[in-house]
Amino acid sequence: MSIVDVWPSGSMALLTQSEADALSLSSKGELYELYRNCSLAVLNSGNITDNSKELLDNFSDFEISIIRNERGLKLELINPPKSAVVEGVVIKKLRNHLYSVLRDIVQLQSLGKDGENFLRKQYDSESAYITNLIFIMLRNAGVLKAGVKPNIAVCWGGHSISQSEYEYAYNVGLELGLRKIDICTGCGPGVMEAPMKGSFQGFSEQCEQDKCRMIGLTEPSIIAAEPPNAMVSELVILPDIEKRLESFVRLGHTMIIFPGGPGTAEELLYILAIKMSNENKHNFLPLILTGNKESEEYFSALTEFLVLCFGPEVTRYYDLIIDDPVAVATKVKQNNESVLDHRTITHDSYCFNWTLKIPYELQVSQPVSHEFMASLNLKREQEPWKLACNLRSAFSGIVAGNVKEYGIKLVAQKGPFKLHGDKDIIRSMDKLLRSYIKQGRVLLSKKEYKPCYELCKD
Amino acid sequence: MSIVDVWPSGSMALLTQSEADALSLSSKGELYELYRNCSLAVLNSGNITDNSKELLDNFSDFEISIIRNERGLKLELINPPKSAVVEGVVIKKLRNHLYSVLRDIVQLQSLGKDGENFLRKQYDSESAYITNLIFIMLRNAGVLKAGVKPNIAVCWGGHSISQSEYEYAYNVGLELGLRKIDICTGCGPGVMEAPMKGSFQGFSEQCEQDKCRMIGLTEPSIIAAEPPNAMVSELVILPDIEKRLESFVRLGHTMIIFPGGPGTAEELLYILAIKMSNENKHNFLPLILTGNKESEEYFSALTEFLVLCFGPEVTRYYDLIIDDPVAVATKVKQNNESVLDHRTITHDSYCFNWTLKIPYELQVSQPVSHEFMASLNLKREQEPWKLACNLRSAFSGIVAGNVKEYGIKLVAQKGPFKLHGDKDIIRSMDKLLRSYIKQGRVLLSKKEYKPCYELCKD
Amino acid sequence: MSIVDVWPSGSMALLTQSEADALSLSSKGELYELYRNCSLAVLNSGNITDNSKELLDNFSDFEISIIRNERGLKLELINPPKSAVVEGVVIKKLRNHLYSVLRDIVQLQSLGKDGENFLRKQYDSESAYITNLIFIMLRNAGVLKAGVKPNIAVCWGGHSISQSEYEYAYNVGLELGLRKIDICTGCGPGVMEAPMKGSFQGFSEQCEQDKCRMIGLTEPSIIAAEPPNAMVSELVILPDIEKRLESFVRLGHTMIIFPGGPGTAEELLYILAIKMSNENKHNFLPLILTGNKESEEYFSALTEFLVLCFGPEVTRYYDLIIDDPVAVATKVKQNNESVLDHRTITHDSYCFNWTLKIPYELQVSQPVSHEFMASLNLKREQEPWKLACNLRSAFSGIVAGNVKEYGIKLVAQKGPFKLHGDKDIIRSMDKLLRSYIKQGRVLLSKKEYKPCYELCKD
Amino acid sequence: MSIVDVWPSGSMALLTQSEADALSLSSKGELYELYRNCSLAVLNSGNITDNSKELLDNFSDFEISIIRNERGLKLELINPPKSAVVEGVVIKKLRNHLYSVLRDIVQLQSLGKDGENFLRKQYDSESAYITNLIFIMLRNAGVLKAGVKPNIAVCWGGHSISQSEYEYAYNVGLELGLRKIDICTGCGPGVMEAPMKGSFQGFSEQCEQDKCRMIGLTEPSIIAAEPPNAMVSELVILPDIEKRLESFVRLGHTMIIFPGGPGTAEELLYILAIKMSNENKHNFLPLILTGNKESEEYFSALTEFLVLCFGPEVTRYYDLIIDDPVAVATKVKQNNESVLDHRTITHDSYCFNWTLKIPYELQVSQPVSHEFMASLNLKREQEPWKLACNLRSAFSGIVAGNVKEYGIKLVAQKGPFKLHGDKDIIRSMDKLLRSYIKQGRVLLSKKEYKPCYELCKD
Repeated sequence: MSIVDVWPSGSMALLTQSEADALSLSSKGELYELYRNCSLAVLNSGNITDNSKELLDNFSDFEISIIRNERGLKLELINPPKSAVVEGVVIKKLRNHLYSVLRDIVQLQSLGKDGENFLRKQYDSESAYITNLIFIMLRNAGVLKAGVKPNIAVCWGGHSISQSEYEYAYNVGLELGLRKIDICTGCGPGVMEAPMKGSFQGFSEQCEQDKCRMIGLTEPSIIAAEPPNAMVSELVILPDIEKRLESFVRLGHTMIIFPGGPGTAEELLYILAIKMSNENKHNFLPLILTGNKESEEYFSALTEFLVLCFGPEVTRYYDLIIDDPVAVATKVKQNNESVLDHRTITHDSYCFNWTLKIPYELQVSQPVSHEFMASLNLKREQEPWKLACNLRSAFSGIVAGNVKEYGIKLVAQKGPFKLHGDKDIIRSMDKLLRSYIKQGRVLLSKKEYKPCYELCKD
Repeated sequence: MSIVDVWPSGSMALLTQSEADALSLSSKGELYELYRNCSLAVLNSGNITDNSKELLDNFSDFEISIIRNERGLKLELINPPKSAVVEGVVIKKLRNHLYSVLRDIVQLQSLGKDGENFLRKQYDSESAYITNLIFIMLRNAGVLKAGVKPNIAVCWGGHSISQSEYEYAYNVGLELGLRKIDICTGCGPGVMEAPMKGSFQGFSEQCEQDKCRMIGLTEPSIIAAEPPNAMVSELVILPDIEKRLESFVRLGHTMIIFPGGPGTAEELLYILAIKMSNENKHNFLPLILTGNKESEEYFSALTEFLVLCFGPEVTRYYDLIIDDPVAVATKVKQNNESVLDHRTITHDSYCFNWTLKIPYELQVSQPVSHEFMASLNLKREQEPWKLACNLRSAFSGIVAGNVKEYGIKLVAQKGPFKLHGDKDIIRSMDKLLRSYIKQGRVLLSKKEYKPCYELCKD
Repeated sequence: MSIVDVWPSGSMALLTQSEADALSLSSKGELYELYRNCSLAVLNSGNITDNSKELLDNFSDFEISIIRNERGLKLELINPPKSAVVEGVVIKKLRNHLYSVLRDIVQLQSLGKDGENFLRKQYDSESAYITNLIFIMLRNAGVLKAGVKPNIAVCWGGHSISQSEYEYAYNVGLELGLRKIDICTGCGPGVMEAPMKGSFQGFSEQCEQDKCRMIGLTEPSIIAAEPPNAMVSELVILPDIEKRLESFVRLGHTMIIFPGGPGTAEELLYILAIKMSNENKHNFLPLILTGNKESEEYFSALTEFLVLCFGPEVTRYYDLIIDDPVAVATKVKQNNESVLDHRTITHDSYCFNWTLKIPYELQVSQPVSHEFMASLNLKREQEPWKLACNLRSAFSGIVAGNVKEYGIKLVAQKGPFKLHGDKDIIRSMDKLLRSYIKQGRVLLSKKEYKPCYELCKD
Repeated sequence: MSIVDVWPSGSMALLTQSEADALSLSSKGELYELYRNCSLAVLNSGNITDNSKELLDNFSDFEISIIRNERGLKLELINPPKSAVVEGVVIKKLRNHLYSVLRDIVQLQSLGKDGENFLRKQYDSESAYITNLIFIMLRNAGVLKAGVKPNIAVCWGGHSISQSEYEYAYNVGLELGLRKIDICTGCGPGVMEAPMKGSFQGFSEQCEQDKCRMIGLTEPSIIAAEPPNAMVSELVILPDIEKRLESFVRLGHTMIIFPGGPGTAEELLYILAIKMSNENKHNFLPLILTGNKESEEYFSALTEFLVLCFGPEVTRYYDLIIDDPVAVATKVKQNNESVLDHRTITHDSYCFNWTLKIPYELQVSQPVSHEFMASLNLKREQEPWKLACNLRSAFSGIVAGNVKEYGIKLVAQKGPFKLHGDKDIIRSMDKLLRSYIKQGRVLLSKKEYKPCYELCKD
């Protein structure tokens, strides 16, 4: 049995007994499992498994123990991954990530139950409550910097990408870094690592390697499969995917989407739904789609699908830049200046886009089921932002039905999902999905792809 | 009408709308008056009035307004004291104090009502709840530094002192500063300023002027009469005098008491009660009494009284050092090293004396009344720590009956307080009090001093 | 024998063997005495003796030894003044001053002889050589800060002043500090300490105590009698009084003169000679004379003398501000902004007034003698700047003849100095001098004052 | 014509007029060409040309102008390489390199001629003078850090290496960085970049990216062909290759040699000559040879050659570690601790190996000629360190005769070099050289390789 101690600093070292008890191994507090698994995940940074279960199985004898003592707090790691330890000491960045996990789970607990109710009572709507909860968690994590000019580029894209796509994302990051623009990603490997790595190099060429912000937003259910990469300097664990997505759009100043699979398409529809919403007509949330030369086809297919659903004017919601890192970085810089002007005029915070209206449908999670899929309206005869919301959900369900264990089982039991909507839209979705599979952007389990849905005639 | 803006930084600039509303002028939130008055008091730093009412009357047109905007938070000061403003900008230290007021009142509000109940529910006893509340407030104020070795000297003493006593306290501070020992006081003028001023000079001679901690602990009911002096670098506003006193003994590593009036005697009895308590037999809370040559008589009288009450062994609870700043500083340094050893062995936090047991009688406030005074047992036939508690209360009541408006009125209405106890103890108290009056350490209103109590025969 | 080690850091710890040898005790290098005496003087900081000889006698067993080793350089202090040592370690600021002494004497040595000749050869004129030598010494001492806006107020005045004058100078310093204006003085006690102390308090109220520059310029022949006070943060030892005076006017942005004795009058004449010089007509070297209410008479007498010599327009060369620290500080701030504009237009360095022309007469030292005094032209029939130069010399000589040992001896041997000039000017000088004596600004040895000069009829 | 301004800071912004004149474009000072070419080279960082002439030709219209003004010093770049400029501003790291060039050439000039003579006069021997000159240049460049524990690994190896060798060197760097060991190289591409890049990543994973030292030592004649890579944080331009090599061994604490070509073999012989020298028997200059799996053969050939020349005990002078970055880093850490102990005992500086004796033959440059080659003794019948010196020279000459323009010409004119020595040694040299050619580690111009030497029978 190997034991390694780490010592949190700052306010994390200053827990009360009852705060420590909730997470402690000895008292097997209710949050212990969550805390242990997230801690294990960050210690495993860099060792890509793509599979949470595997990680947890490999380190089934890992435990973490919280001990309050004279110097504040000691975390005792029992049988931690060897890669996390150099000369008997846990690598500093991983220690910082451990403290982030501790911080966010303590915060979750202190807001939990009574606390959360107290918080919720202060707000008229569930929607406002969710947004304020996110604000409080980001504030507590120290990622909100009051008074700092808009400077964050959020990078989204597939986590399984080719070497040339990796290099392209690196070069975009490099040009962003040379312009001292901070990066925020979902903090895993692939497109979540490449722009951070490039940006770090860019900042360091400007001798600002210490000011370079690499914000990683993750959530307990994904952190093990996509542990924070070695570049992340500020890690936040949000409670779930919906709050994580909302954090991205409220925290970021420009959104960049690199090529990816169906997940990336869902993210794009998420943003489009927000941008198309009437209430956001005067908000400013710039969006750039970009990739290298080889990705041109990928983006054409995507554009074709979007135009079919929303008409040609949909392309006005984003800039498409092919194979030009300098152009991307220059555009981001311009965007951030526009965001600055816009927030200054509207007196909205530079560091949190309060005035952005996020449809409640996007704030709450809706588990896939035949009923839910059947309830989705995929017709053009509705407000475009609603169609975008519904398409995002449909997309999500079809992917589940084809590749996720519980989805495949559902379809096997109850037959294909029934979809209600315009025929050409559903066909186009299918086509897009097939192209992703062909390009290796979706990993199919065993069998060939077979549509798991059918169009209903209304 | 003059308006000056200040911009909080850090997390203080990141209030939610509901947090800001509670304190805002426009919504006249319930805490606004408290917030306004404390803010006014810190802006008035250095302008000694000794009289809260006078201050509030002089600046009756002062208002403070909280405005959330793009850069975070703006405080708009309407008609602030002129002395607070240089070249159109509020002096930085006063701005920091304004942010401390904001921080502590926001914290008070967030713990308030439901929040406080939530917190209270986590603890078995009221006593534990109070201690944890104090810990949470000090942690939130950033004055707890985990892992830092014991290094804080708490200085207590009268706020109205002679020039030679001021200089002595300055020289003690200088020697403490040369040894890089931090200072914590009640943060007003006089003995609360002198050692800070000396210490700052000492730190600066060691080129550590930036690391010099000058912690001031105050409370809303006293802050106007004793505004933080210009040296305080970390200001905390505790809810009331009992929590403030508890903060001193949990935060400090060595207590130093300079000559003062009856208030100082009460403080000394407060510490003695704690130190004499059986449960603290193995705790280590070093105490030094010190003053210049002229104060020798003062300390003799005090010692005589203590010996009468508790026997000669009482002198073992403290060190008495006359006219020797180097000896005081050297002793403090030794004490702090002993505290370090002690906390390391007991695994108690270096920055918060968790294991110190404070009698519940000292944690709650007990308003002066004839009933309360009559209920005090001032006999030697009890545990010494209880006698110390009761003497402290009796002292407090007699002072009120002689010099405080509501106390004088009480005595005028209902006759002298009846005290139950040993005759010689009560006589000795009276003698001590008279000596303070003679030395000008108590300001009598109008009339001559006349005892406001009588001894009951049991 | 007590031995205390100190360890220089930075480039001072990196001497070559031959550099160390020149100063070392063991090799009794030629500069050792100078180095030892200056080191002793700075260690004696705060212990005012007013008498170099006394200091050297008191510490005749003091030695300092330079030892090169693995960590760089070790200075071994043998029998240092006890006041310099706290808990076995030399106070950090005094250590810094020791390193400054080391640095400046090493520099002197490296420029010395061949080196200096090499430097001198690069310049056409002796005057340019002197100015460049000063620049190189100040650059090496790190007091020149390229690109920093003009911000230095030079404070001159008597080193023996009354408590009320001290307090006034403190308050001027406080107001300068609140406006973040740096101070440069001759770094001894009195008027050289008071504004530094006030300024430090001002900076600290603005939470900038770490950015507060307290530049002290001294010279080997004065450093023992006026050791650097405890506030000085940057100490430079210039080779002689002339280079020191030139350093003040090239480094400073506004000159402030507080009341003083004949030395102060000489300094004022030094500046006036420079300002009156035709070549400086377009230079900008602002000058403020200031003192508290009581000093009003002092300045009237001075003004009267100056008007007599140079006509009423002389008052245009300076601002006279009585008893108003805020007005002084505000004026300094304005002056510094004008200096900024002026230097920007003329492209002269913000940190070194290269374009100021200093008459060669003021750059070289001229020892007092009957011949030299007789050669001075004190008539109005010459360019005013020349009269100012000559008056400065005459003043200096008369003071020497009255109070300095070698001057008194000279006069005893050869009779009074013969002066050539306008009768009323010489009388007025005498009157001024008598008023200084009456005000206690000159310390007479034994006998009463008796003029040591006589006017020659030409 | 494009013009970009940069503003040096610190003492570099504080040149005197005569210092600036020596380098200025307008006065076409004697050092201008050198200064211009070095400046161009650092601006071209990252744009590998391997050919100085090409670079100079490509940017024949580049000029650099030094202008003194109010903010200190301005460098005006006329037609700088576009890659150096982002959004109109020169990349900060390149600006820093520009200042390093300026600093070292100003220093060269100030030591030059008279100055250098002054310096030389202080030393008995030419050898001591050279060592002190190097010390003074490194001190002035700020790379010597007194009191800092031995922590520098010098990395040598070929600058043209395969991707797998690059990755191996990166991984060695990463492990060094995780252990916070600083890197010093010749600062070009290839093996001079890879360990720096890895180390930077390692330091950043330890959150010490700001403390990571990346020292690059270069010289005017090589800087254009091998411009400083983007990682270098401290750049020093030494006057010539001999002083540069001496700088490496005096500054570094462990020497690491990666696979390379004949240049690397020369460097190895350089170190062996020093280590074998009797006078260095008690010095400690640890040496590690390392490479990935594929390099095993390379090192076998090298070892074979060394054993032939010096006997089997030669392998005791170094550690050979194949394909194990962790082992290399761990060994370096151990070595550095031994260096620490050794220097502490001998009182030699941690930051400059003063006691190492470098044979004068290695300190002076000896241009290749038939006479010089004929004078080399390549027999075993001499002290091994002498044989190492001579082998190094012979190696150098043969390479020149085969691939360098002037060498090929020499051989064409006067026939093959005559070598005197042991036949098997010369044959083995030839064999080694042929293996390098086969492995692509030497670039041959046009024709096939043909030995350019012959063995003389003595």
